[in-house]
Amino acid sequence: MDVWRINLRERSLKREPAPESWGRLGGRGLSARILLDEVPPTCEPLGPHNRLILAPGLLVGHMLTSCDRLSFGGKSPLTRGIKEANAGGSTGLHMTNLGMKALIIEDQLPTSGDARSGWWVLHLSLAGARFEPADDIAGLGVHEAASRLLKRHGEKVAIALIGPAGEMLLSAAGIQNLDKDRVPSRIAARGGLGAVMGSKRLKAIVFDDAGGKKPAIADREKFKQAQKLFTKNTLDHPQTKAFQDYGTPAMVRMCDALGGLPTRNFSSGRFEGAETISGEQMRDLLLKRGGESETTHACMAGCVIQCSNTYGGEDGKAIVSPLEYETIGLLGSNLGIADLDTIARLNWEVSDLGLDTIDMGAALGVAAEAGLMKFGDGDRALELLREIRKGTPLGRILGHGAAMAGRVFGVLRVPVVKGQAMSAYEPRAIKGTGTTYATSPQGADHTAGNTVRAKVDHLDAKANIATSRGAQINMAGFDTLGACIFAGFGFMVNPEVIPDLLSARYGWQVGSDILQVLGKETILLEREFNRRAGFTAADDRIPEYMRTEPLPPHNSVFDASAEELDSVFNWS
Amino acid sequence: MDVWRINLRERSLKREPAPESWGRLGGRGLSARILLDEVPPTCEPLGPHNRLILAPGLLVGHMLTSCDRLSFGGKSPLTRGIKEANAGGSTGLHMTNLGMKALIIEDQLPTSGDARSGWWVLHLSLAGARFEPADDIAGLGVHEAASRLLKRHGEKVAIALIGPAGEMLLSAAGIQNLDKDRVPSRIAARGGLGAVMGSKRLKAIVFDDAGGKKPAIADREKFKQAQKLFTKNTLDHPQTKAFQDYGTPAMVRMCDALGGLPTRNFSSGRFEGAETISGEQMRDLLLKRGGESETTHACMAGCVIQCSNTYGGEDGKAIVSPLEYETIGLLGSNLGIADLDTIARLNWEVSDLGLDTIDMGAALGVAAEAGLMKFGDGDRALELLREIRKGTPLGRILGHGAAMAGRVFGVLRVPVVKGQAMSAYEPRAIKGTGTTYATSPQGADHTAGNTVRAKVDHLDAKANIATSRGAQINMAGFDTLGACIFAGFGFMVNPEVIPDLLSARYGWQVGSDILQVLGKETILLEREFNRRAGFTAADDRIPEYMRTEPLPPHNSVFDASAEELDSVFNWS
Repeated sequence: MDVWRINLRERSLKREPAPESWGRLGGRGLSARILLDEVPPTCEPLGPHNRLILAPGLLVGHMLTSCDRLSFGGKSPLTRGIKEANAGGSTGLHMTNLGMKALIIEDQLPTSGDARSGWWVLHLSLAGARFEPADDIAGLGVHEAASRLLKRHGEKVAIALIGPAGEMLLSAAGIQNLDKDRVPSRIAARGGLGAVMGSKRLKAIVFDDAGGKKPAIADREKFKQAQKLFTKNTLDHPQTKAFQDYGTPAMVRMCDALGGLPTRNFSSGRFEGAETISGEQMRDLLLKRGGESETTHACMAGCVIQCSNTYGGEDGKAIVSPLEYETIGLLGSNLGIADLDTIARLNWEVSDLGLDTIDMGAALGVAAEAGLMKFGDGDRALELLREIRKGTPLGRILGHGAAMAGRVFGVLRVPVVKGQAMSAYEPRAIKGTGTTYATSPQGADHTAGNTVRAKVDHLDAKANIATSRGAQINMAGFDTLGACIFAGFGFMVNPEVIPDLLSARYGWQVGSDILQVLGKETILLEREFNRRAGFTAADDRIPEYMRTEPLPPHNSVFDASAEELDSVFNWS
Repeated sequence: MDVWRINLRERSLKREPAPESWGRLGGRGLSARILLDEVPPTCEPLGPHNRLILAPGLLVGHMLTSCDRLSFGGKSPLTRGIKEANAGGSTGLHMTNLGMKALIIEDQLPTSGDARSGWWVLHLSLAGARFEPADDIAGLGVHEAASRLLKRHGEKVAIALIGPAGEMLLSAAGIQNLDKDRVPSRIAARGGLGAVMGSKRLKAIVFDDAGGKKPAIADREKFKQAQKLFTKNTLDHPQTKAFQDYGTPAMVRMCDALGGLPTRNFSSGRFEGAETISGEQMRDLLLKRGGESETTHACMAGCVIQCSNTYGGEDGKAIVSPLEYETIGLLGSNLGIADLDTIARLNWEVSDLGLDTIDMGAALGVAAEAGLMKFGDGDRALELLREIRKGTPLGRILGHGAAMAGRVFGVLRVPVVKGQAMSAYEPRAIKGTGTTYATSPQGADHTAGNTVRAKVDHLDAKANIATSRGAQINMAGFDTLGACIFAGFGFMVNPEVIPDLLSARYGWQVGSDILQVLGKETILLEREFNRRAGFTAADDRIPEYMRTEPLPPHNSVFDASAEELDSVFNWS
């Protein structure tokens, strides 16, 4: 497994062995290590000194269930700190089949001075790298662009690509990836890495793994046994069934019950329309509608959980895939919209633009507070999203996310930390996740350590400090393995599975605490990058209004103290 | 001399003696002390915890030439750090006549939910404070609003007021003050304190000093002697004559000759149209035109330098007063505009909106680079400024200044430090001023320590570290005294004048190094506020492109090292 290094200015590819210190890392941890070693932390995120990193997790490549996730990394134009965003789909698998431990993209292709020209596709295969002009697909949404690329390069390739938002360098732009069925639906959404890719003038990276092979396994028998146990544990876990049936939208009812469902720009934690946008309602609807609707769907080959879905309209035709809980929370309840069809249409528009649904939902909530739309008005929300496609000043503001919308429109109730929008877990009601939002080097991000399922009083800030710490360490570990959070269902049953898989795959001696070891190392690397970028404890805070304005229905504020927040990473 | 403390929520006024530790400070130093003592450094600048401070300098109140400047302070919505912006005019004098050592405005008046209603005038006199509805002048530019307030309150009052930009909470909004002739032309421009005032729902503060008197003087005879010497020294200084004749626009030729005149969004330091926008050209023009034109004009009563001017059009009617060098540089050469009439009209529009001409000129330069206008197109520039008045999304973006315009439009060549635009001194050609831009706690600001007149090789970064240090200390001292930078001409001839004035005025024992003592104390207070707000050495840097892209005509980059910049405040 080599590091592939593309220099865009030179249009060169080097394949080189990973340095010693990178060897035991993958995914998020490897991305952090590379960024700390190679990218000046104070650099301009959209300038030539930033690098775009693609690093498959350590377990990627063998179709272990829920373990083929790929980390994208770079300095974030949204948070101005370190950024990792990962996604399922097929890209990671193609990379490992090609023998890539990581792909590092350096410098920039020249701008043409015209937004619609000077775009390129980077094509990677065993034959090496080549650059193909992409002006014919510049400006296209990810669905049409992916479809044309698949026609050109054959149905078997993997593609990572950006939409119009990434081309426009908007800070909420992500990088879309094909799922196993060739739909560009697996987005490394958060923190604006799509804009970093856009700043390098790459519309897409095509991976053709023809002739490639799975990475070598040191101890095949041991690996097979561990894989078998892991798959069984995962399948047997009671949560797996729930996620097969309802997917992440199962969280709508749960968060609403906890008073933590963001509603009308995070002004309430309970939504009167929660039931009509619940996972249960959605399942019933999709089963009734049939057609292209799917209540269960795998994003990665080999996944046995298959938490994804395809949301079909009344005519049975797919509107969007997938429709996730966080999107329902941010583009639904947070906008006062209680209609799944409307939410699905908003979701498609955001995804096709190549934007993060979380930051866009939060931005529209802020826009509503600024008087640009009425809560509940889905048509107006759609109109606002179309401003982004048109590239108008209003569209650009929104496409930079909630923090920018708040700054420009003078709105103070802006649910962000380090410039990045909170997800569909209200920090005043689910304080462990709130603690993660505050302290994660990634900015507000539920995937950095969500505590909603922990057996803890979610309203007790003090009790949730350790919960957030543990969740953040585990998630940084999972992200380094390339494991989906739902792989945790299987992993947690038998703690030896992870060390067994790693030692069988790589021949390493690893302890039973390897998940935590990887997680802690990753977080320390990220915090060091941010420290050098100029971050301090002052950045590890929840917005002022959430510390003073009580949230219905519990009328709670976010009350973890500065000292408690600053203790989150004191794990020695 | 008392501290007057207004609580807007309670609509209360308290007059109280200054705490011991505030006693020896005034102006910028006092503002910094109050902010550090009373405002949480991490607070939301436009929220209820920020305070607006007005603090006359220590020497204000006796019509000492060039020494009646008033400091406005608060946490900046532009830099998110400490902010002081000072202005001449009549407000400071009225405050000291009323016996105010400082005015502290706490909390906020309630918003009405409608941008044009719920506005207030705060009226201060010896009778105390009263609040008057101001909805009839909400939305008006500062000229019309001031004119109506003068009709209502009589011609003798002083007024500090905001324009539409402050009402809209735009980050480049300043606070306008009447000059001695009742023209709202003396703006505390930088860092968005107009937005802070707007967030408190104050359209204007009216000071009526009827019945007031000059502050007591401990030793009248000594004061008189020192004042006499100071006035003579100032009048005799050769620079004074130049500033009487040409005012600050004398700098156009000088900066162009140094290759440091910002041209077309800071892409060159020399402008082919420099001569047509020079101070010499302007003087000839204004003398020819006559009418309301004035080539020399005092902003404060008692000033003998009178560097200001009134720019009249072809018909002799005033277009704007004053037209300063920094405005000519930013709204002229920086936009490729070589016509003084056009620049004057842009200046009036910006001033009437209550905006900072420096950040607006820089924002328009960035807009031009983004393709929103052609360099040289004054009509389009005027159109863009009118977008601000209309409050469109584009107008709001621009009204937040250059940093915001750069972020929204994805432009990387943005001449800002700590989010605040550089003034008309190119840091790659005048590296001492560049060092000040980088390191001043105020963000890029030539008034924090301009080195353009120092006898030093301006292209030698290393040689300019100490120059910037000295200039920053002196200027922080001047700003604490309430002294105009041009008072320095008089002060520098005889170093005993400042200690004599202070000891005569207050009865203090002060050493001959009192200017430096005050300056250092002020800078340390400001840096401590910023440190607590989360600033680090990473914030004390010039933008990346200025460190890599050579500037014509010298083809120089800004090359002070990190270590050199970090040594600026090592003065022990």
